[in-house]
Amino acid sequence: MSLLIKNITLVPMTGKEEVVEKTNIYIEGDKIIYIGELREDIKVTKTIDGQNKVAMPGLINAHTHIGMSLLRNYADDLPLHEWLTKKIWPIEAKLTAEDVYWGSLLSMVEMIQSGTTTFCDMYFFMDQVGKGLEESGIRGILTRGIIEESGKEKEKLDDTRELYKNWHGKGEGRIKVMVAPHAPYTCSPAYLEDVMDLAHELDTGIHIHLSETKKEVEDSYKTYGKSPIKHVYDLGLFKLPTIAAHCVHVDESDIKILRENNVSPVNNPSSNLKLASGFAPIDEMLKFGVNVSLGTDGSSSNNNLNMFEEIHLASIVNKAVNMDAVSVPAITALKMATINGAKALLWNKEIGSIEIGKKADVILIDMDKSHLYPRHNIISSLAYSVQGSDVDTVIVDGKIIMEKREIKTLDVEKIMYNAEKAAKDLVGR
Amino acid sequence: MSLLIKNITLVPMTGKEEVVEKTNIYIEGDKIIYIGELREDIKVTKTIDGQNKVAMPGLINAHTHIGMSLLRNYADDLPLHEWLTKKIWPIEAKLTAEDVYWGSLLSMVEMIQSGTTTFCDMYFFMDQVGKGLEESGIRGILTRGIIEESGKEKEKLDDTRELYKNWHGKGEGRIKVMVAPHAPYTCSPAYLEDVMDLAHELDTGIHIHLSETKKEVEDSYKTYGKSPIKHVYDLGLFKLPTIAAHCVHVDESDIKILRENNVSPVNNPSSNLKLASGFAPIDEMLKFGVNVSLGTDGSSSNNNLNMFEEIHLASIVNKAVNMDAVSVPAITALKMATINGAKALLWNKEIGSIEIGKKADVILIDMDKSHLYPRHNIISSLAYSVQGSDVDTVIVDGKIIMEKREIKTLDVEKIMYNAEKAAKDLVGR
Ligand SMILES: [Zn+2]
Ligand SMILES: [Zn+2]
Repeated sequence: MSLLIKNITLVPMTGKEEVVEKTNIYIEGDKIIYIGELREDIKVTKTIDGQNKVAMPGLINAHTHIGMSLLRNYADDLPLHEWLTKKIWPIEAKLTAEDVYWGSLLSMVEMIQSGTTTFCDMYFFMDQVGKGLEESGIRGILTRGIIEESGKEKEKLDDTRELYKNWHGKGEGRIKVMVAPHAPYTCSPAYLEDVMDLAHELDTGIHIHLSETKKEVEDSYKTYGKSPIKHVYDLGLFKLPTIAAHCVHVDESDIKILRENNVSPVNNPSSNLKLASGFAPIDEMLKFGVNVSLGTDGSSSNNNLNMFEEIHLASIVNKAVNMDAVSVPAITALKMATINGAKALLWNKEIGSIEIGKKADVILIDMDKSHLYPRHNIISSLAYSVQGSDVDTVIVDGKIIMEKREIKTLDVEKIMYNAEKAAKDLVGR
Repeated sequence: MSLLIKNITLVPMTGKEEVVEKTNIYIEGDKIIYIGELREDIKVTKTIDGQNKVAMPGLINAHTHIGMSLLRNYADDLPLHEWLTKKIWPIEAKLTAEDVYWGSLLSMVEMIQSGTTTFCDMYFFMDQVGKGLEESGIRGILTRGIIEESGKEKEKLDDTRELYKNWHGKGEGRIKVMVAPHAPYTCSPAYLEDVMDLAHELDTGIHIHLSETKKEVEDSYKTYGKSPIKHVYDLGLFKLPTIAAHCVHVDESDIKILRENNVSPVNNPSSNLKLASGFAPIDEMLKFGVNVSLGTDGSSSNNNLNMFEEIHLASIVNKAVNMDAVSVPAITALKMATINGAKALLWNKEIGSIEIGKKADVILIDMDKSHLYPRHNIISSLAYSVQGSDVDTVIVDGKIIMEKREIKTLDVEKIMYNAEKAAKDLVGR
């Protein structure tokens, strides 16, 4: 298919112009082939009218657990330990492959409807997420969360090896697989070595939780005499490209390690707030040159997958934390959700910005909404005023996934029905 | 008109049952006359199907400056002082009555579309806001912000006296007028006395900004040797019912004064974050029995009027600040936006909850959305997952203001067009 998005306001996120007024985007197959004035010589099969719309790169949710949407609003307002041990873990133990399939599809519907085109997922029954990616047409990284369990050490590594074999590069290249040791407090140093060996063997990246809570850092000092970040660095983890979820409780020397090793921390503002984890020093990290990206974490600690909410929060929360209204400006928060996410996911040559030669992962925002008038500044509007529900059209790999808010690739009603049914069955089990 | 909302899930906010499944709400004229099983003996002219919807009281935005929507996204990511003196004040000086009319109507459209049925406004050209309230059919308190200005002291008081005479009780009682000294740092003690005299004369309440920034509190100690709250308390302000916007930088003795004098602080989470004002100790205030309500502040420090965002933030931000995931639970944040707001606005006998005898200010949330499945807990869903755009129907004073997202009382296209035009004219002036 070839596609023209005509007469559109473009926010390309290339680091050059912030806003390009009234331009035209030509897409051929999965790629953006031209941006600029109308071209008679390029024939297209479909034209989308860009009037009153803004085009920007599809959002990248760099850390999530999408199967957890079945547990949305299941357990809230509880202390972290009670939440995990009494509510989340017992019910997660009952999840079946089919549950994860419906939960993941429900999440993909929600992500598409709020402008996310790529996500990095850590969960289990990851084949189901792969199936969902094939069906939905969006882009994602599958990682099977590895928690050390006596007698199952080898089995869990083999799971990821199998996952890689079955899914890496599938979906016309929209699916990748990485290796996910859950956290340094759930994997011993010896086991982490095995996990790293596996990542080297597969020649792929790492997805891990690091320094989420104060307690985690304190425990790490007790056990290893150093911070979680220094601990895994000393073990050699950062020789592998690493996506590090959270990095809330980090000090200057942690930030230096992250920067020098090109580790990409993922900020999850809603989750860090809701679980009372604290405030990640993202302004300091960004100013030091660290590639901070953005994620939602799972739906049970958020409780949604709306990246526009995270963009908004990343900017405004850090202003208050730093007592500095200039901290994390609008454009920076938008970068975190686009090009920085692409870098974190080792995908920045193909996605994260709208430019000629890149994959056509484009979202169109309907600006004809009361809360988006007047039009003083499009960048501010995107970071502070736009709602997930303002996303009108979603294009991934050059294919229209949603148009005028209608999802083309998935049966939304069926997915909502089955997810509700699966969740009710689950709590009754 | 008489109205039946049939087979609905009700969140009444009465402090009794949190959720009532499958009930029926009967409305006659402007009042709720019955809640419970279907009644053959009550004849209605219209029935709304409540299937897959939740009814809750219309949200109450207890502090805003709605004319400022014309300045939305006009000036962001700037230090507070520069923002105010170089951007906001110079452009506000150019605002005309017509500008404020279109800005206010734009805000009312946005409020209706996101479930707000009542607001407390502080601005100027308040007749225009009154006109908007008459046209839109929603409910509001008009207050003319009084900043002491040499030679205009009497004129500004007379403005409010006139406003009261023309608008108090109008719109079938949907409009009230209060007295609004802008802040203790913009009104001298002597002038505040005159302002208080006026409020006593009119027998109405006070709307004021108090302890918004650290600097304000420090300056108050320098000038008066006490906090802004102690300062105005000593002047006798709190003998009048008082709505106190912000109260971010308050200490224990301030909180005690607020509690003992039944002052209602309004928390404005987005604004306090975005302007880097800080974190109001709302958990402490609430636990001490203070009636904390919720507001958006103006659109230029937010940058929207979506109360569901404020509900979400009030809950999750305070969990992180207090390092306590139990802090400000979902139901408490919902109270802040409904019944507490009604108390703050001296309107709790008529609005703020859904019960027999109260005014019919009801909103219906469309729960058939991907991000609202599964249905483990409706209260969590409302506080953590619902988006402003999920509001389907808005009823105020028994009249349907919006149905299936279509506003019945205002010409939305015309308002967006004129607001955009007014804003463009304004910056070019
Ligand atoms: Zn996580
Ligand atoms: Zn204000």
